[in-house]
Amino acid sequence: MNAPPIQRLVTELAKLPGIGNRTAQRLAFHILRADPQEAYALADAIREVKERIGLCEVCFNLAEGPRCRICLDERRDPSIICVVEEPNDVIPIERTHEFPGRYHVLGGALSPIDGVDPEDLKIAQLYARVAEGGIREVVLATNPTTTGEATALHIAEGLRERAPDVTVTRLASGLPVGADLEYADEVTLGRAFAGRRAV
Amino acid sequence: MNAPPIQRLVTELAKLPGIGNRTAQRLAFHILRADPQEAYALADAIREVKERIGLCEVCFNLAEGPRCRICLDERRDPSIICVVEEPNDVIPIERTHEFPGRYHVLGGALSPIDGVDPEDLKIAQLYARVAEGGIREVVLATNPTTTGEATALHIAEGLRERAPDVTVTRLASGLPVGADLEYADEVTLGRAFAGRRAV
Repeated sequence: MNAPPIQRLVTELAKLPGIGNRTAQRLAFHILRADPQEAYALADAIREVKERIGLCEVCFNLAEGPRCRICLDERRDPSIICVVEEPNDVIPIERTHEFPGRYHVLGGALSPIDGVDPEDLKIAQLYARVAEGGIREVVLATNPTTTGEATALHIAEGLRERAPDVTVTRLASGLPVGADLEYADEVTLGRAFAGRRAV
Repeated sequence: MNAPPIQRLVTELAKLPGIGNRTAQRLAFHILRADPQEAYALADAIREVKERIGLCEVCFNLAEGPRCRICLDERRDPSIICVVEEPNDVIPIERTHEFPGRYHVLGGALSPIDGVDPEDLKIAQLYARVAEGGIREVVLATNPTTTGEATALHIAEGLRERAPDVTVTRLASGLPVGADLEYADEVTLGRAFAGRRAV
């Protein structure tokens, strides 16, 4: 019973991840009720992001220009590179304020089943960055999933061949802070044991 | 650490109801990754809905033109009007396929605390519609909340004075279908008792 423009908006909103039809309906009505300025600001922000944001030519993170803010930041240590799957993985790492170096965004993880091969990711570009020299450590921060682990392993082997002097590390896997042993799954708990440290 | 256009999009998305900062971030990254055509379709749908959708001159439902689809539909019974608070209340009622008549959208509910007085709602317009004649029943389908009940009561009194021949009804209140007596709140259960029917 929606008028076509409303239905069109509901359909477009429902394509967003985690937004079902009901939520899309609710969001559409909010937009209908909202101040036109607010609605146009949202529409413009969507257009702008597609028009102005590309990939950094160095690390393939999102960038508003040829290079991203982190690659442009002189204070960031260029000798340590953190390898992540997607641009949105950079944000939680930045939030920790623990990582002083730069990034390399692969654009996904290896998954032969889904047809994602090494050539589909920015792996060759990582090797090229390392080959240029000046890199002492590569931190593999792909997700602790099957595909993320496979990707980390593949890159670790590739780097070992190409740049044996570069330290290759992987983020620690174990119990999340605040977790309860009783509810930990056995794989995580196994990892936590394997990675135990002296206190 | 987001580039300004991304941050702008996250900020605009986070203004939507039920969308927090994390979700806005996730949606923004989806839009960044999405096919440009899909992103532009969403931006255009937002603009279009603001430019093309207004209020029906008869019932104040959303309309793509001077009158809404329901007021234009000759098959709808013009002698019975269902009064709702907001345009989005029309959709669930239409979904039941139980209501053959037309609507009247108030644009809210009376709430002296929030400064919503009868003049702020389309109540006078409802009285004018009824005064034109040809209406035999007005169904008050405002929400079963304090403000919705107060609005229904106010309109019921106004109609009794102005059009004593018009039947004024209120949607039944009671246990939702599929509910469990054990978990019903006492107000709902009280209503269900008060409104019990012979079987």
